[in-house]
Amino acid sequence: MILAEKDLIRRADTKILLFILDGLGGLPHPDAGGKTELEAANTPNLDELAKKSVLGLIIPVAQGVSPGSGPGHMAIFGYDPLKHEVGRGVLESLGVGMELLESDVAARGNFCTLDSEGNIVDRRAGRPPDEEGRRVTEKLAEVIKEIDGVQIILKHVKGHRFVVVFRGEGLSGDVMETDPQQTGVPPLFPIPKNREAERAARVIWKFIQKAQEVLKDEPKLNGILLRGFSRMPYLQPFGDRYKMRGAAIAAYPMYRGVARVIGMDVLGNPETFEEEVELLEKHWDEYDFFFIHFKYTDEAGEDKDFWRKVREIERADSFVPRLMALKPDVFCVTGDHSTPALLGKHSWHPVPFMIYGPYAGPDDCKKFTEREAKHGYYGRIKAVDLMPLLLANAGRTAKYGA
Amino acid sequence: MILAEKDLIRRADTKILLFILDGLGGLPHPDAGGKTELEAANTPNLDELAKKSVLGLIIPVAQGVSPGSGPGHMAIFGYDPLKHEVGRGVLESLGVGMELLESDVAARGNFCTLDSEGNIVDRRAGRPPDEEGRRVTEKLAEVIKEIDGVQIILKHVKGHRFVVVFRGEGLSGDVMETDPQQTGVPPLFPIPKNREAERAARVIWKFIQKAQEVLKDEPKLNGILLRGFSRMPYLQPFGDRYKMRGAAIAAYPMYRGVARVIGMDVLGNPETFEEEVELLEKHWDEYDFFFIHFKYTDEAGEDKDFWRKVREIERADSFVPRLMALKPDVFCVTGDHSTPALLGKHSWHPVPFMIYGPYAGPDDCKKFTEREAKHGYYGRIKAVDLMPLLLANAGRTAKYGA
Repeated sequence: MILAEKDLIRRADTKILLFILDGLGGLPHPDAGGKTELEAANTPNLDELAKKSVLGLIIPVAQGVSPGSGPGHMAIFGYDPLKHEVGRGVLESLGVGMELLESDVAARGNFCTLDSEGNIVDRRAGRPPDEEGRRVTEKLAEVIKEIDGVQIILKHVKGHRFVVVFRGEGLSGDVMETDPQQTGVPPLFPIPKNREAERAARVIWKFIQKAQEVLKDEPKLNGILLRGFSRMPYLQPFGDRYKMRGAAIAAYPMYRGVARVIGMDVLGNPETFEEEVELLEKHWDEYDFFFIHFKYTDEAGEDKDFWRKVREIERADSFVPRLMALKPDVFCVTGDHSTPALLGKHSWHPVPFMIYGPYAGPDDCKKFTEREAKHGYYGRIKAVDLMPLLLANAGRTAKYGA
Repeated sequence: MILAEKDLIRRADTKILLFILDGLGGLPHPDAGGKTELEAANTPNLDELAKKSVLGLIIPVAQGVSPGSGPGHMAIFGYDPLKHEVGRGVLESLGVGMELLESDVAARGNFCTLDSEGNIVDRRAGRPPDEEGRRVTEKLAEVIKEIDGVQIILKHVKGHRFVVVFRGEGLSGDVMETDPQQTGVPPLFPIPKNREAERAARVIWKFIQKAQEVLKDEPKLNGILLRGFSRMPYLQPFGDRYKMRGAAIAAYPMYRGVARVIGMDVLGNPETFEEEVELLEKHWDEYDFFFIHFKYTDEAGEDKDFWRKVREIERADSFVPRLMALKPDVFCVTGDHSTPALLGKHSWHPVPFMIYGPYAGPDDCKKFTEREAKHGYYGRIKAVDLMPLLLANAGRTAKYGA
């Protein structure tokens, strides 16, 4: 991040609004006559904005790399995801509002169903309702408070999902996951990836065994699978780095977690995008930079549901006038990665972005689509180069050299 | 610079002419119906050339970085400005023809007006005429020749501006400027940025005090402000690096300085672009590579004068036939950065470039504008990658590997 390294960032009285549609990018689909999701969608507001903005394509991490949402967002926030790997356990724990110490090891957990021989029957324990998952998490938390001097902190997330934090000295996140990603076999042993991780692996193994003991009479939620073991990385906080007060608005834990890792404020507890927008409007005067997250495009893409993704894009489009009504000095719309419905998963394809602002540049794009963005003035950039462009557009940079 | 690192540069009997229009890139302007300066200008010669050339856009330093003219030019000459920072004092001193030793510390100076309490009344001493600035510089030079074993060398530049070189051992350029950038306060102390710079700071401070003593009876030019303290960086000389005899033709000190830093010959003392072109014609047979500089586009941009910038572009265009008449094997037109009249300052926006030559490439651009250059064959490149393209186009490179 050259602007930060060379001390070229300045404060200014401008506001930046970053609207991320998760998994935005798509691929031509035969059911839509070869159109992508963005092309098939009716998006009058985004297209109107495109005419006044400068477009381009971002390469999320590197050519050919399909990023997870963590690296995808880190990059957009200007933190190189190849240098700063943040574990899923950390992201999810922060996302559900847990405070993490530097020495903590955090992990994501699934309740699973084991048969009498200890083999996995269902990796998601029949997708229990929230109340059920919460009840069993609390049952575990009540009994297992400490192992070998390491404090065990549990928190339910949703359905069969929970997070667990191992708090103690001398722990490492270099432990392999215990989910074999298949049924008919027992959970895996948490193998330490190096000598330093032996203590953590032992504690984790004891925790898993104790948990199975505590849950042995549960009909469905009688085992656990852990993954994403990780510790908090040190990252220069967003406010220090960019000299902006930054706020994140996201309904999903993961994205709230990413924001917390980089030290952004995370606003409220929205459950829908409508609630996210309300939060944005409510807190508009309090921050310089807002990240607002729209998850539903990614979900539809992952479900291979082309037309649902189209509808979600159209729904996102319908909120654009409300976002623009706040009069951000710089408004940027993009995605953290592509999730083409044709593929049904995250992909490596460049993602369109557009920057609206008084000095965005000479452009002639008419719509906000992948094919139009190819011709955008900013061309293809790395996702980590988006923040410098947003800062420059917002008049928040100084000249480099004489 | 891979061509140099891999020893792939060869001599050849070809000539390269690089025409830099300072601050060339622009932004759509409401007064011109959304056209940029280049689009609004009537440039038959550049457009004719564009049809036979290959276009592209250069990113001067990095995305979102607005470069000074020093880094902007260094990059175009293939020297990474992020690795080689060259101070303004050095550039300006070299630019006015001073020879610098490696151990010298150079600075830019302004005469200012101080009131009886020593507070700054006018940071530019009422913009005195050249004669006045020269007279006072000479008065200083006559009295202050040495401080603590350090030789003081002064030279007048223009109006209220001069340069000072501190020649002695153990000096560092890591000293903060003394210009507070405001009136009503006294000049700042030249604070050393580290222990190594203490000696330099002390000498500089004594120099400032002596100067005020010498100038105390001057009505207007009775104080000095110093900035851009710097030492010569070591850079591989242009001739060694590129195996070409390179010459620079520029009227302004700064650009002459940049050329000297990288060891190019600086021709004559032109005062106008017309004189620059005459020098070029006169010395055409003596060099392999010429850099000719057109300053006036940047000045108009900085003054927010859209139509003057348009006219300056048109004036530059009118010289193109004379430049082409010299029959350069490779002719390149570009800018060191953008200076959109809309912004009134250097900006981060990519700058169009075009390369004319028999092997430039397949292209279909019809005009030399930002929007056309988007579609150019060379796409978007970093400014430091321009020289390799010029060398290759001039048949001055060898194949890499078998």
